[in-house]
Amino acid sequence: MSIESRLITAKKPRGFVDRRGSEAAAEEAIVSTVGRVYEKWGFERLETSAIEFTEALGKFLPDLDRPNEGVFSFLDDNCWHSLRYDLTAPLARFAAEERIALPKPYRRWQTGPVWRNEKPGPGRFRQFTQCDADTVGSDNPAADAEMVAMASEALEAVGVPRSGYVFKINSRRVLNGVMESIGLSGSERTRLTVMRALDKLDRVGVEGVASLLGQGRKDDSGDFTEGAKLDSKAIQHLIEFITLPTNSRAGVLAGVERLAGGNEEGHAGLKELQRIDDVLGALGVDDSRARFDPSIVRGLEYYTGAVYEAELTMTTVEDNRAVAFGAVGGGGRYDDLIARFTGERVPATGFSIGVSRLVAAQALLGQRAIDELGPVILLALEADQMAVYFRMAMELRAAGIRSEVYLGAGGMKAQMKYADKRAAPVVVIVGGDERARGEVTIKDMRLGAALSKEIGDNAEWRESGKAQISVARAALVDEVKRALARAEKQR
Amino acid sequence: MSIESRLITAKKPRGFVDRRGSEAAAEEAIVSTVGRVYEKWGFERLETSAIEFTEALGKFLPDLDRPNEGVFSFLDDNCWHSLRYDLTAPLARFAAEERIALPKPYRRWQTGPVWRNEKPGPGRFRQFTQCDADTVGSDNPAADAEMVAMASEALEAVGVPRSGYVFKINSRRVLNGVMESIGLSGSERTRLTVMRALDKLDRVGVEGVASLLGQGRKDDSGDFTEGAKLDSKAIQHLIEFITLPTNSRAGVLAGVERLAGGNEEGHAGLKELQRIDDVLGALGVDDSRARFDPSIVRGLEYYTGAVYEAELTMTTVEDNRAVAFGAVGGGGRYDDLIARFTGERVPATGFSIGVSRLVAAQALLGQRAIDELGPVILLALEADQMAVYFRMAMELRAAGIRSEVYLGAGGMKAQMKYADKRAAPVVVIVGGDERARGEVTIKDMRLGAALSKEIGDNAEWRESGKAQISVARAALVDEVKRALARAEKQR
Repeated sequence: MSIESRLITAKKPRGFVDRRGSEAAAEEAIVSTVGRVYEKWGFERLETSAIEFTEALGKFLPDLDRPNEGVFSFLDDNCWHSLRYDLTAPLARFAAEERIALPKPYRRWQTGPVWRNEKPGPGRFRQFTQCDADTVGSDNPAADAEMVAMASEALEAVGVPRSGYVFKINSRRVLNGVMESIGLSGSERTRLTVMRALDKLDRVGVEGVASLLGQGRKDDSGDFTEGAKLDSKAIQHLIEFITLPTNSRAGVLAGVERLAGGNEEGHAGLKELQRIDDVLGALGVDDSRARFDPSIVRGLEYYTGAVYEAELTMTTVEDNRAVAFGAVGGGGRYDDLIARFTGERVPATGFSIGVSRLVAAQALLGQRAIDELGPVILLALEADQMAVYFRMAMELRAAGIRSEVYLGAGGMKAQMKYADKRAAPVVVIVGGDERARGEVTIKDMRLGAALSKEIGDNAEWRESGKAQISVARAALVDEVKRALARAEKQR
Repeated sequence: MSIESRLITAKKPRGFVDRRGSEAAAEEAIVSTVGRVYEKWGFERLETSAIEFTEALGKFLPDLDRPNEGVFSFLDDNCWHSLRYDLTAPLARFAAEERIALPKPYRRWQTGPVWRNEKPGPGRFRQFTQCDADTVGSDNPAADAEMVAMASEALEAVGVPRSGYVFKINSRRVLNGVMESIGLSGSERTRLTVMRALDKLDRVGVEGVASLLGQGRKDDSGDFTEGAKLDSKAIQHLIEFITLPTNSRAGVLAGVERLAGGNEEGHAGLKELQRIDDVLGALGVDDSRARFDPSIVRGLEYYTGAVYEAELTMTTVEDNRAVAFGAVGGGGRYDDLIARFTGERVPATGFSIGVSRLVAAQALLGQRAIDELGPVILLALEADQMAVYFRMAMELRAAGIRSEVYLGAGGMKAQMKYADKRAAPVVVIVGGDERARGEVTIKDMRLGAALSKEIGDNAEWRESGKAQISVARAALVDEVKRALARAEKQR
């Protein structure tokens, strides 16, 4: 088949995205800043491959109802392989495979793409970047507290102000305790239904949760969700629990003691939260930055102890309504994940940041220079003078100035259009006349555009000399520097 | 199935690798340094996804003889998808898909993992990182020259000395010209056999190439490779061409003119090399850093003009023999890749760096601190004093010192073993006695290890007080700083 016999459609698969320039750099900048914080806290970088044996990734998929969907898988060498869907499952495989060599406990951070074979939607991609920190081999609640304190330092490092975020912490053992206190220690199925109901507080409100704990609930679309069929006393107990005022950690601890402290599991959860509070206090993380919130469940089935999530409190506009920005990361304690390989329980806790969420947050916070200045463009007006332009570009780069020579085949007009598309702040023009005079012309593109706007389509401004200046060849670098400083100021 | 009912083997698929700590950081550091250089030359960062439609990746696979092998592929939504095997094929798809929006020419750099479904071997992985720069939409040989000059700046930026590398440049058009000059303009098949023979100069020497151009060649294992069956005059012409002395670009140009300049294609190739020489000269890249080398073919079938590769000239030891380190990157001009989508020829040129090769080179050049110092470890000797240790760790981190609290369940011995595994230069010890006295004990681990070695297994040195010192709690940060400075000096 010859190359041209059939044209291929140039199209990426749905749910994937291409990122150019500053958009591509933003995620990397965040990950590198977060990584520096994590390193300072003693977390060691880890890199594992994208591909794992499917059975090593296991069944710990986000959606309980379709545990085998969601991953990209293929058969190779008669074994099923999958692209990782998160960074926790590969960590469990790694920690089990390298358990002899690793320090115990093992603190690691990791970043990289993960893949989900799910229906893509707006802002919902099938490949995205995660940035995780985990402590493997410690059952000490101090490890959970450390995770929260460290993640809060990371958020501040990427520009979220101290007043702009809050961590919400809960304990699965406290949840278990409160369910036990209403006689739900037996049926795993009812407990899951209850947890799913509690998890919906944000979306359906107290009334909705009460319905889901009772006979069931019909949503706006008319769909009916079967309830947990609890009696009204049990429902009241649970509602009281999840609506405990969260403004003071000590207050929540008192409430938890009253509502869940009466059995062993609830008491253990209470102790866990007390020790977390202790270390958070030592690290200076007060009630305003980290709250205990009994309504936090977190969907993943595998959490066994503390669960925590980070929320940005600033508002954003969606569908013309102001809404809270919401979660940028979450995690918790999962003591069973590594036992799948080793047969032994290995206590672990970890936190995962949604990197693209943080990019969006930075944009809202005005931390990102969306309107980035492009490079200096040297026009190439005479085909046989490329060496002249390249030498000038080299001088500019040697002075630290991002610069490039136009390499297309177009004339003056195409070259200026190119400079526009590249957001060039400055264009350097050397035609035959300039060369003969030993001069270069330096054009300030922003000033030019502004003048052009003022004067309309009239081309007169070009001759006005205001937006461009001719100087001696030897003054090239200095004059470009001056023009760049002006452009920088005008941003 | 309960979690423990069957243990899963903790194993990564063959041909993949896990990287810890400084090993994981090394690749990223290289890519980020190279990226900074490329940005300065006006190349814009691009990020595309790992997954593409298989047909978009096309048939441009490295191995001519098995064009459909080598990629990881899977069926999704009734379409074949593949993991990218390089960064050039996705660029072609992207440049075609976004051809309206992109500046023309479009300069981009990109990094990320690529996957090859090939037999893994020593140092040969099925996932590895590439770092590419490409200029799309320019047929100007200045674009090729720029690529070589920029890549050489990148090599120096990651620590390769100016005397430690050489770029070898050739032109496919010159190769076509020299083949035309011996009457080989017709048969595509013979031309490919000839190019494959010339490409083997490094491995089989002049005699071997001559055999492969003639009747054929039997290698050491007895395998026979059919030759191109050229007559001796043609063989002599080709051998003379590929053995032209490469120490001066001007000299090679003269030789090319003599041996290949007699037809249109050869003349066009000659002009191409002349213009590359011109721009390289303007950019200060002399004969010692960039040579014209007529023996350079490069395997990929799709190159249409200049081809170039970067070699490190230092030697390394393999199988107890000193051998040249060899190639760390390569590329060339491929004018047909985008036409598969658009039907129109889009001239392009690009260079790809093998990042793991550069990591190995840095290690050989002594640029990497393999023996990296770990964090300061604060022992946790009393379970109810975690807040005390965490507060100290916070103070150390606030002073910029990487620090962590031991979070395992072990006693003194296990904690010291942990500190060893973490390569901790300094350990901070606060037991009940120290607390009562308002002191902290700071232990210099290297000094301790040295003394321990001197004195043998005798535990006396521990009491000698030489490797550890007790100071007032308030002096913690200053004393740790002092101990770290000492450790840094001893490296």
